[in-house]
Amino acid sequence: MKTMFKFCKTQLWECSRTLSDVAMGRKPAETVIRHARLVNVCTHEILENTDVAIACGRIALVGDASHCIGEETKVIDAAGQLIAPGFLDGHIHIESSMMTPVEYARAVLPHGTTGIYHDPHEICNVLGLKGVDLMAADSAKTPLKAMLTTPSCVPAVPGFEDSGAEITPADIASEMRHDYTVGLGEMMNFPGINGSAEATHGITGETLKAGKIVTGHYSIPETGSGLNAYIASGVRCCHESTRAEDALAKMRLGMYAMMREGSAWHDLQEVSKAITEHTVDTRYAVMISDDTHPHTLLTDGHLDHIVRRAVSFGIDFVTAIQMVTLNCAQCFKMDDELGSIAPGKCADIVFIDNERDINVTRVLIDGDTVAENGKLTIDLPKSELPDWAMDTMHIGEVITPDTFKIYTDKKDYATVRAMEIIPVHVGDYERHVKLKVENGELKSDTEQDVLKAFVFERHNNTGKHGVGFVKGFHVQCGAMASTVAHDAHNLLVVGTNDEDMALAANTLIACGGGEVIVQNGKVLGCVPLPFAGLMNTKSAEEMNALVEQLGGAWKAIGCDIQSPFMTMALIPLACLPELRLTDRGLVDCTTFSFTDLEVEDE
Amino acid sequence: MKTMFKFCKTQLWECSRTLSDVAMGRKPAETVIRHARLVNVCTHEILENTDVAIACGRIALVGDASHCIGEETKVIDAAGQLIAPGFLDGHIHIESSMMTPVEYARAVLPHGTTGIYHDPHEICNVLGLKGVDLMAADSAKTPLKAMLTTPSCVPAVPGFEDSGAEITPADIASEMRHDYTVGLGEMMNFPGINGSAEATHGITGETLKAGKIVTGHYSIPETGSGLNAYIASGVRCCHESTRAEDALAKMRLGMYAMMREGSAWHDLQEVSKAITEHTVDTRYAVMISDDTHPHTLLTDGHLDHIVRRAVSFGIDFVTAIQMVTLNCAQCFKMDDELGSIAPGKCADIVFIDNERDINVTRVLIDGDTVAENGKLTIDLPKSELPDWAMDTMHIGEVITPDTFKIYTDKKDYATVRAMEIIPVHVGDYERHVKLKVENGELKSDTEQDVLKAFVFERHNNTGKHGVGFVKGFHVQCGAMASTVAHDAHNLLVVGTNDEDMALAANTLIACGGGEVIVQNGKVLGCVPLPFAGLMNTKSAEEMNALVEQLGGAWKAIGCDIQSPFMTMALIPLACLPELRLTDRGLVDCTTFSFTDLEVEDE
Repeated sequence: MKTMFKFCKTQLWECSRTLSDVAMGRKPAETVIRHARLVNVCTHEILENTDVAIACGRIALVGDASHCIGEETKVIDAAGQLIAPGFLDGHIHIESSMMTPVEYARAVLPHGTTGIYHDPHEICNVLGLKGVDLMAADSAKTPLKAMLTTPSCVPAVPGFEDSGAEITPADIASEMRHDYTVGLGEMMNFPGINGSAEATHGITGETLKAGKIVTGHYSIPETGSGLNAYIASGVRCCHESTRAEDALAKMRLGMYAMMREGSAWHDLQEVSKAITEHTVDTRYAVMISDDTHPHTLLTDGHLDHIVRRAVSFGIDFVTAIQMVTLNCAQCFKMDDELGSIAPGKCADIVFIDNERDINVTRVLIDGDTVAENGKLTIDLPKSELPDWAMDTMHIGEVITPDTFKIYTDKKDYATVRAMEIIPVHVGDYERHVKLKVENGELKSDTEQDVLKAFVFERHNNTGKHGVGFVKGFHVQCGAMASTVAHDAHNLLVVGTNDEDMALAANTLIACGGGEVIVQNGKVLGCVPLPFAGLMNTKSAEEMNALVEQLGGAWKAIGCDIQSPFMTMALIPLACLPELRLTDRGLVDCTTFSFTDLEVEDE
Repeated sequence: MKTMFKFCKTQLWECSRTLSDVAMGRKPAETVIRHARLVNVCTHEILENTDVAIACGRIALVGDASHCIGEETKVIDAAGQLIAPGFLDGHIHIESSMMTPVEYARAVLPHGTTGIYHDPHEICNVLGLKGVDLMAADSAKTPLKAMLTTPSCVPAVPGFEDSGAEITPADIASEMRHDYTVGLGEMMNFPGINGSAEATHGITGETLKAGKIVTGHYSIPETGSGLNAYIASGVRCCHESTRAEDALAKMRLGMYAMMREGSAWHDLQEVSKAITEHTVDTRYAVMISDDTHPHTLLTDGHLDHIVRRAVSFGIDFVTAIQMVTLNCAQCFKMDDELGSIAPGKCADIVFIDNERDINVTRVLIDGDTVAENGKLTIDLPKSELPDWAMDTMHIGEVITPDTFKIYTDKKDYATVRAMEIIPVHVGDYERHVKLKVENGELKSDTEQDVLKAFVFERHNNTGKHGVGFVKGFHVQCGAMASTVAHDAHNLLVVGTNDEDMALAANTLIACGGGEVIVQNGKVLGCVPLPFAGLMNTKSAEEMNALVEQLGGAWKAIGCDIQSPFMTMALIPLACLPELRLTDRGLVDCTTFSFTDLEVEDE
């Protein structure tokens, strides 16, 4: 028996006779949209003066619907505006918005997003499957279709970090039974897949057995045997291409290339050349956001913004719409329910003013208007969270300025490995930096733009911490700390001096997690994230105000890069190249081995 | 839990580690194809000098496979030939070939067909679900992937004919549990769907509940409320378009337009204009054969022939290949297993000499070569059938020349309704013909090309028969009879005189069913079809010899149209326009009501 399609008002088999009655004119439609210009993603056309008749949350007819209108029918005159299928984000982490699922929905619905394929692997790293269930329960309070992909890699890189949970193949087999679970979250452990590791293939295998979708994460610029091994293992999509040739190689191998345009990583301009500079069928091309901040959602938008970006990069408008609708639905094998404005499908419909400005003016989900002109038109409840989800700072040591001292045996100078960030991209570089030794200590060196970085385990009071250096933040004086620190979300602290670093750390411990900037003993900005150390129940507007203040604080301490916290949060992510720092130490991510802070032979 | 994908050598989750090992070069491939020109249906490209590595019946790598070759690896040098995914026929009735599934497979495999979506609704009308099971069991003896769609409309038009079985929603619910059942066979009862009939929606609904595909049959040139109602009810594809605008309308409404090119109905030239004369995305376009005779399979080919036809009609070569591979697999939501040459997919691969001649030179299924240069290279067993399947002529009356007398009350002339056939198309026209009355009798009138037609119930010894006239066969003297008479497959007899008609009928009763031509008391040609009155266990070559002889007999009695038996066999098919004859009488198929033989007011 099919897993019931949870994300609709009425199952098709329950309402097919009504839809037939409505299409034939025997019963009036509940809603009819008139005089629209239909963005037909099935045939890649814009069809003028088209009506849509809706009943039971589904589309009964597309064409001339004058015979479907009765006295009770709600008629919406599109007056020549475009209508497109509701936008689908094929890969997102709600936690990155720092908002709960309810508040995330409140923010993205007015932008035309009607469905998301979300991977709650941040909360899963903190709270395990209990956290995943919490996200699913909160999501269910809104009309946004929140299709869940179960986190696959918790911890992200086993053996290299301590997280709050561990996911096994047996967990996956169990989770796949939920009707809100449509697949497996990004399989970041490509070394495990390509090394034929039993546990890793166990996790993908349980998903395949359940007939669900394995989503991917293949982040290295390799398109030969490794990419083939990864895809051959059953991974259906990947959002980690940063070069056009990677995305093209994936599409050629039958993998959905999800082109990313998030708040902090802007891959689309480069990656979209896979389709703008090559004459290829684009059905395997999808656009996704991965991670977005409240500011981006409020200021730029969500998938509407990405469609505008795509068009600005030379992607045809209708193709861009296909990339956030039908192509995504086909990737998840849900094109019988979602992704097109066609009879029988869920009536998830976005009104767009015109194909140049691409402003979303109205959004319908299951036939009901949920937003108009950028404003939500329905009431959403607030998120309600249990106490245990708000108490996640379990650090097994008292942090003082002395905690941050780094000693060396070297005399005058020592060469250390530093992680050089690449603004608005997810990768980093390993750089070897010569530091002066003062009183047997290695210190931050603002002249070389090199800062101390510490990661403290925060789930099990182990008292572990890892030590490294980062380069590229341009910070002159102060410290920053975050419990959003992928993927184990331990406590990450970076700074120019030990006192500010200790204050930053202790400020977050006191407020249950979050992001903070301090300078000279003063807190310049703080975003408390007490829900798992990742989220807050505040609205996008409130969160944005806090984040804006924090942005000012970043500038005040000298950092001018875009979305610096998102880039900083990747410092511990040991599945990305090249050098990363976890609570267990420095990791060489090209060989997947621990490495020393100091370079001995230079 | 997913229904296991029955049509592969190894489930992906059972061999993903091996595929990874092979792609990475840690284990040798079982087979490597080298130096091929890959028809990449994912991106619509031809990629030069490409290798494919295969293990466990699946593709491990596409690209440079030199590192996958070990001592035991079988290397196939494509030497610059094209390789394409194995061809899939999205809608066929094996019974129309008059061969058993085993012999059908033997005939089509060398032409590159590696998978079929077959609807055994002919045998189901005779033997019920026992017959369907028999077809599935016989299919399982060959490597051809015979994906079964359960007959939906048995009888085809309830209340208008007597068939050997009846299929209910409960039957469908039960059949959908088989892992070889992938969907519902063509839902011909579009009046039932569009009339919101409970039983009809029960049948489609049970299919949708099972998460399987409802295939369609919408044969009227209507693209408004009726087509919308039909698609809204969950029907995913339709192969009945005869006009380009119908196919285009279907694709625009998100329905897969299956363009038909069978032995007797050649819709492709016209219907393909939906994509050659419009700038549309072609992902919803598929090509299928529906019904093919042994002669076509031996002389022209199968899907390879259809691809050649498509190219001759102006469809781009790669697009044509997509239409018999990826698009079809996506229609059935099996693109994770079939339809592309990509890692993880079944290694079903067709070698083609070049894109102009399009000759299939080698065929692999699950990585094993099954045919080369038009010849099967594997042994197939013979079909073995139970006695009850060979004993299906249950006619409840003794047929003599007198049986065929048609009396009238009219004096000199009477106007009758005649069914005028349209050669190589499935429709017919209702014509009103003035016949001379001789001794109170209406007779065949060869000058007006009008012949008597009778349909005798043959399943339950009811003794019922229906009476009508046909026009358009050009037969001068003789009679023809057939137990292939869609869809109830009663005994159909047409002729110029009563003696020959009786001889034709009794010849078929004696041989257990089949097709026969007689003239002046002599049998000129006979194809015995003792298996359900529809099939014979002989090979395509043997069947073709018999059919050729029969073709000569058709010509001898004056008929020069193409595949006349296939056209004749549609005379009783009351779900096609405009006028049809069943064992219960003449049916007006535009109003779905019985009508009189004589026209009273003309």
